Amino acid sequence: MRITILTLFPEMFDGFVHTSIIARAIKQEKVTVECINIRDFTLDKHNHVDDTPFGGGRGMVMMCQPVLDALASVRTENSKVLLLAAAGETFTQKKAREYASIEHLILICGHYEGLDARIYDYVDGLLSIGDYILTGGELASMIVSDAVIRLLDGVIMEESHQDESFENGLLEYPHYTKPVEYDGKKVPDVLLSGHHENIRQYRLKESLKNTYINRPDLLENREFSKEEVKLLEAIKSENKL
Amino acid sequence: MRITILTLFPEMFDGFVHTSIIARAIKQEKVTVECINIRDFTLDKHNHVDDTPFGGGRGMVMMCQPVLDALASVRTENSKVLLLAAAGETFTQKKAREYASIEHLILICGHYEGLDARIYDYVDGLLSIGDYILTGGELASMIVSDAVIRLLDGVIMEESHQDESFENGLLEYPHYTKPVEYDGKKVPDVLLSGHHENIRQYRLKESLKNTYINRPDLLENREFSKEEVKLLEAIKSENKL
Repeated sequence: MRITILTLFPEMFDGFVHTSIIARAIKQEKVTVECINIRDFTLDKHNHVDDTPFGGGRGMVMMCQPVLDALASVRTENSKVLLLAAAGETFTQKKAREYASIEHLILICGHYEGLDARIYDYVDGLLSIGDYILTGGELASMIVSDAVIRLLDGVIMEESHQDESFENGLLEYPHYTKPVEYDGKKVPDVLLSGHHENIRQYRLKESLKNTYINRPDLLENREFSKEEVKLLEAIKSENKL
Repeated sequence: MRITILTLFPEMFDGFVHTSIIARAIKQEKVTVECINIRDFTLDKHNHVDDTPFGGGRGMVMMCQPVLDALASVRTENSKVLLLAAAGETFTQKKAREYASIEHLILICGHYEGLDARIYDYVDGLLSIGDYILTGGELASMIVSDAVIRLLDGVIMEESHQDESFENGLLEYPHYTKPVEYDGKKVPDVLLSGHHENIRQYRLKESLKNTYINRPDLLENREFSKEEVKLLEAIKSENKL
């Protein structure tokens, strides 16, 4: 997979591409991540990439020409082009899985007040990572890249994906490691029992409980197994919910 | 304001604290951002911070001791401690505004499969930036810091906040800058008219339209002004919605 990021601040990505799992995925050639500096494409003699908004108002707006020329320099017929914007569709784990099968993902980072809206006509979609405002699209593009890259074959252990939050429609169950007792707090007995079936059931129940209490919206359109229905009833009665 | 980030990868934050608006806010002493390396607090002679999970399963779990000793080294009675986790409450612009008034925000970044669940007892809350899985909490903590820092007094122009997505419960209206025509696409006439009242109404209508089409969920509990109700009716009839 190839990820191309169009940005005014390519230096912001150094830490991302050189650390931990993403650095290893790049080294192992599971993915290529390249940053293109939009400013390199300006035709303005002062290297301006932005100008004041028509109709008045505060702030500066990124101009069509440098952004679209930068885009044209890297786009191929196999590219999917997404623009990071608060007004876009919300990024989810489902979208991460979808993007992980794309050959070439191009992510455009806006900055200042935003981009000239005519740029929207040249992209495949607008994408938002959540309902909050950021100083620019750079961190958002790293979030999307990170979520996608870790799903590529061989980047992390296959089994690691199975029990994660959202992958099975539920939040994760709690993890515990050594020591058995810390500051008076003990690891639940069942996890020390070696009884695999009890451990599996305990974890499923904790996942259901976490989700039911903290994110009931995730359960709204979920199809439950018979076991899950029974566990959920037990959770409600035990916790007086 | 002071933001302290507990992480195994402090070098990942270099680009974030040295670029653009955040770098300027730090230089102007609107905020202090410090990274504490959790590994510096390990008592293990091999500097291990993680171990295998009780009950079996894949991956490694971050241990209580290094994380909680790192936390104790920076926590004061004015600190709010949040742990970045997919299972947490969802971060929103409303939360960003709330956190912007906190004296000291401590953000704990998990990595590997997660943290020992007993750590949850020592934090004020679990926070998620969206429904997707990341390789660690580092990027998520930058997102939260970025959204909060830009709201601090004097970091960006006050007027810039007023018309932004989510601040008034709507997505933003489209921006346009020079040239008037690009690749055959023209800036809407009203924005060139100089008629302030028409421009205000055009922008409000575009905000409503964007939100109604792309994020109708944002309108569900919104109180509309009389003008907005009228504009929304016009939008529905014009777009056959």
